Amino acid sequence: MSGDQKHQVVFLPSGKRGYFDSGTPLLEAGRSLGVDIDSVCGGRGICGRCQVDIVEGQFDKFGIKSAASALTPISENEKRFDQRRGLKPGRRLSCHTRILEDVVIDVPSTSQVHRQVIVKTADDRKIEMDPAIRLHYVSVEEPDMHNPTGDFERLSAALKDQWGLGDLECDLRTLQKLQKCLREGDWKVTVAIHRELRITEIWPGFHDKAYGIAVDVGSTTIALHLCDLSAGAVVASAGMMNPQIRYGEDLMSRVSYVMMNPGGDEALTQTVRQGINELLADVCDQADVNPDTILNGVMVGNPIMHHLLLGIDPTELGGAPFALSTNSGLTLWASEIDLNSNPDGRVYFLPCIAGHVGADTTAVILSEAPHLQEKITLIVDVGTNAELVLGNRDKLLAASSPTGPAFEGAQIACGQRATAGAIERVRIDPVTKIARFKVIGSDLWSDEEGFEEETRLSGVTGICGSGIIEALAEMYLAGILTEDGIIDGRHAGTCSLIEPVDRTFAYVLVPNQQNPIRIYQTDVRAIQLAKAALYAGAKLLMDRLGVTEVDRVLLTGAFGSHIDTRYAMILGMIPDCDLEEVKAVGNAAGNGARIALLNQTARDEAEQLVRRVEKVETAVEPAFQQYFVDAMALPHKRDPFPHLRKVMALPEPAPKASDDPAGGRRRRRNRRSQSLTG
Amino acid sequence: MSGDQKHQVVFLPSGKRGYFDSGTPLLEAGRSLGVDIDSVCGGRGICGRCQVDIVEGQFDKFGIKSAASALTPISENEKRFDQRRGLKPGRRLSCHTRILEDVVIDVPSTSQVHRQVIVKTADDRKIEMDPAIRLHYVSVEEPDMHNPTGDFERLSAALKDQWGLGDLECDLRTLQKLQKCLREGDWKVTVAIHRELRITEIWPGFHDKAYGIAVDVGSTTIALHLCDLSAGAVVASAGMMNPQIRYGEDLMSRVSYVMMNPGGDEALTQTVRQGINELLADVCDQADVNPDTILNGVMVGNPIMHHLLLGIDPTELGGAPFALSTNSGLTLWASEIDLNSNPDGRVYFLPCIAGHVGADTTAVILSEAPHLQEKITLIVDVGTNAELVLGNRDKLLAASSPTGPAFEGAQIACGQRATAGAIERVRIDPVTKIARFKVIGSDLWSDEEGFEEETRLSGVTGICGSGIIEALAEMYLAGILTEDGIIDGRHAGTCSLIEPVDRTFAYVLVPNQQNPIRIYQTDVRAIQLAKAALYAGAKLLMDRLGVTEVDRVLLTGAFGSHIDTRYAMILGMIPDCDLEEVKAVGNAAGNGARIALLNQTARDEAEQLVRRVEKVETAVEPAFQQYFVDAMALPHKRDPFPHLRKVMALPEPAPKASDDPAGGRRRRRNRRSQSLTG
Repeated sequence: MSGDQKHQVVFLPSGKRGYFDSGTPLLEAGRSLGVDIDSVCGGRGICGRCQVDIVEGQFDKFGIKSAASALTPISENEKRFDQRRGLKPGRRLSCHTRILEDVVIDVPSTSQVHRQVIVKTADDRKIEMDPAIRLHYVSVEEPDMHNPTGDFERLSAALKDQWGLGDLECDLRTLQKLQKCLREGDWKVTVAIHRELRITEIWPGFHDKAYGIAVDVGSTTIALHLCDLSAGAVVASAGMMNPQIRYGEDLMSRVSYVMMNPGGDEALTQTVRQGINELLADVCDQADVNPDTILNGVMVGNPIMHHLLLGIDPTELGGAPFALSTNSGLTLWASEIDLNSNPDGRVYFLPCIAGHVGADTTAVILSEAPHLQEKITLIVDVGTNAELVLGNRDKLLAASSPTGPAFEGAQIACGQRATAGAIERVRIDPVTKIARFKVIGSDLWSDEEGFEEETRLSGVTGICGSGIIEALAEMYLAGILTEDGIIDGRHAGTCSLIEPVDRTFAYVLVPNQQNPIRIYQTDVRAIQLAKAALYAGAKLLMDRLGVTEVDRVLLTGAFGSHIDTRYAMILGMIPDCDLEEVKAVGNAAGNGARIALLNQTARDEAEQLVRRVEKVETAVEPAFQQYFVDAMALPHKRDPFPHLRKVMALPEPAPKASDDPAGGRRRRRNRRSQSLTG
Repeated sequence: MSGDQKHQVVFLPSGKRGYFDSGTPLLEAGRSLGVDIDSVCGGRGICGRCQVDIVEGQFDKFGIKSAASALTPISENEKRFDQRRGLKPGRRLSCHTRILEDVVIDVPSTSQVHRQVIVKTADDRKIEMDPAIRLHYVSVEEPDMHNPTGDFERLSAALKDQWGLGDLECDLRTLQKLQKCLREGDWKVTVAIHRELRITEIWPGFHDKAYGIAVDVGSTTIALHLCDLSAGAVVASAGMMNPQIRYGEDLMSRVSYVMMNPGGDEALTQTVRQGINELLADVCDQADVNPDTILNGVMVGNPIMHHLLLGIDPTELGGAPFALSTNSGLTLWASEIDLNSNPDGRVYFLPCIAGHVGADTTAVILSEAPHLQEKITLIVDVGTNAELVLGNRDKLLAASSPTGPAFEGAQIACGQRATAGAIERVRIDPVTKIARFKVIGSDLWSDEEGFEEETRLSGVTGICGSGIIEALAEMYLAGILTEDGIIDGRHAGTCSLIEPVDRTFAYVLVPNQQNPIRIYQTDVRAIQLAKAALYAGAKLLMDRLGVTEVDRVLLTGAFGSHIDTRYAMILGMIPDCDLEEVKAVGNAAGNGARIALLNQTARDEAEQLVRRVEKVETAVEPAFQQYFVDAMALPHKRDPFPHLRKVMALPEPAPKASDDPAGGRRRRRNRRSQSLTG
């Protein structure tokens, strides 16, 4: 010991340093310097959140001879903690370790309140942990007959004293439990506090489990992630078909159901809430988590899902002017939407952007953060309605485009949902026109050994959304499909795979089975209409932003994440772009919900953002119709797609001079067959 | 018309004046001067709240020749309003009346937002109308596809624009109705706003009905008043026995029930909530009011009732240190306490003061406002626990004193609740010792003609709380009862109304019926114990405040309002005071609840007050025991009661020199019999 002398302490990784008296606890020293060290128990040696490493290698430069002498020996409290929960060698509880000499301390990321969590996005976003719910262990004064304040008021005073949290309110259910918890915990309790404003739960003694859920309510699927609110990790996930499907496959048919059936909105609301509760039970089961410890949730969905989940009749969203009930973020009690979590858990709904652009898009923006980048990013969430976001840090635009359900395998003769047996990958030999393919449930190509064995159970039953994209693109590359989307009957004579059907032709993708899988001319048309709508929407946004090219394209949503981006571009679903910069980013809406769950300021950020986003209503834009017509061709009637052509042997584009469709089509077809045969 | 010239307008009663252009609407002129003129419809000529009188008598001094020329003629709007709802002659709607020349206007109190309402208290308090709920009629912009804000956001913008209300939040149930209401009302709606913060209800078009309830939940009775939130008037009242009585007559037996029966607190909570809902249905029926228009409520009760109504287990209030769950005011959703009003109505619970001094006492303070007075006021709420407040504007003290149920007629042989047939007034002839009396249900004295006729149905069945007070005081004045509370057996020989019972005596109050009504020695003792507890509590507070005398005494509660204050003082229930200044003030707790209902700032005032009130816990004060013993005598062993003696021929008090109780009692008894016979 060095008496009254002050000792220098350096905290890594921040590098913050200061001089402290002998005997100062490390936690106290760190906090006084503003070092980010976690603690739920407030320095009582219970929670273990304040663990630090002693950086021995650095001692020499401070002239310290031995690490042991720099700090007080392992305390009884630390020994107990080690026995109970384990303490890595070299680790100390900073609350029970006192400074004796100069020392260098490392605060591992797991001990930082605001530690960073990586969320898997196109650029792997780093999220600072800052959940809306925090737990605080607190020691409360016992009541005194001579100073008869209420138990709640003494709890409040303790939270102010020990945690600096003033003016707290309290949920009634917590108030109802308060007195028992205080006495059961011998005047020590843990409380959950929402946004530093309101106590939403209480436990006797020390408690350190708090969970949250991030829920993406799609019209087709619902995905739910259970997150640990201190570590930030996803501890369990579950997904299901949206059970509302029984009321209509797509959004508009569900809105029609509501319009036609009095009380139909309530049925749809109950159905989706029930579905979420099933997922909630599932993740709780998987992770062995008590639903009462789920204290927070974030919900995202398109406007109709958003409204139905809230119990708001979506009729207004079924027709112009597509008025949202609200485009603000909402915080509700879990019980208000019948969620089987802690009834006093708070559920946050990210704001919708417009009548067709929902909270799911807001979540996608949060996840992919185009507003933080210099590059112009186009984000495409493909679904029955494609939601589009375009822009960069200067400006963001959003729109939706009515693609219809073709991308999801509907309206396609052999189309099916993406389940086992569905074709998802296709390659066509340009000479023989024979297709190889892969089906969901097997990693083998259809011409590889063992394929039949592996697919015996499922069979090859149809073609899913991503499969139809590849099939059409490969048909185009193999010369089976013309630039105008005509299945070319000239091969019918030489190739048995091209069959005449009425006055058109069909291509037989899988010939040798009881139910051969064919691509009909009507299938091609359906996909053309869908992709043209998507492209036209993107084009309209590019116009509005004043750009002719985008720097990046991100595909998201269930479909977007399965699609081969190359084929999407060959078909002309998305504008031309360096193929390296076209990425499928998975469930970006779910990621965004998780970000808003783990970081409360992201919610405020989202609310600011939606106000800044410029909405473009495709339906009323005069240019949309022309853009749509132009985008029917593969990849496009006018746009040159230079990036795509650089890497793919695409047929030359048709000349732009002629506006006579028939003549143009004829000329192009001629040129095309030349390039295929030449 | 006088062209561009400005005209002077004077608004009475405020006297505010200003100069205005020709054509300025009176409402606009008044508001610009800060004149308090009401409006729900925002100047659209619908609500009729902005009516004003034209003060014709004042015209001359402004040189105006005719009232007709000073203002625009009666408008079409006013004519329609007159047909629809009636407009008194000379009255104008200030929103549709424009200034043409100098004019004097009177704003009648019914047209003032902050009009004053008189609440019947000891001093008839004037309350400024300022309810927590206000209605606002508003015209909302229609949605526009090019600027896709939500309906709620456009409603918010309109409320900011038209009413200056910014940053409003909204209840989910309102959000669920919002879109239908806007369209049904052709983009005009009325909203209810709670504390200028949150929209809690919405109606299509114009709506001007908003009600509130003030509820006083006593352990014996529950009283509910339905108030019009714009006029401030009580439109219906209802009361009932507290149905919890089946679980125990007094508070402590109900707490015992909870302690002995798991889940007993829930049963008690349900029971009291059900009782309130019955009263609510009753008042709605009486006043033909839709429960959905009840948008606000204020609840008061003693701590145990307060906790049970909130669903908080009252066990902690059953024993030292009598810790309250909370001593703050609480605002809840009506649905949180199962109230059958509008489910989004807000219910405010006034704060409790201490474990024995409840929100009812807070309400009593609000009603009687001792904290606004120079005079030292003692407020006594008599019940199983007497709650006491003492002080003035400098300081307020509160305590409770365990009087037991004797004042309510319990523990008294012939005692009964205050219902038909119960004796409530008593006079005893000092010579014959014969009593005259009145019973509840008749205005006649028992010796008046027709009494038997009038009471034939009810009979004379017992004696209620106020009756027993008068009986004992009269017995004392008639020499039947000694200063020490002994029924004097020396009269037994000469008077048949004094009967020996074991080794004591009884006085026969009503001799000539099948079940004669007697006052036994044990009855006297029970009342002595109760009144001594009450007096000792008051004395302790006076000690603590440093006063030997109080300026005023107010008796409140069901019992307090029926009692003859003179007899209360003769018995020594309350400290000596100028009899003119002793008043029974009825249900002051209910009044206080109504004040908090009509004036939201009174709630804040109450929350400030309870923090200032100094709590005195009688049970742990060493002096209490001695004060209690001293207060057993009639009116008191030591205190001289000079005010009382000035107006009543009371026997001289015993000398204070001797502290030998036996000797003292003997001497006093001797002196007393002298004064009675002399």
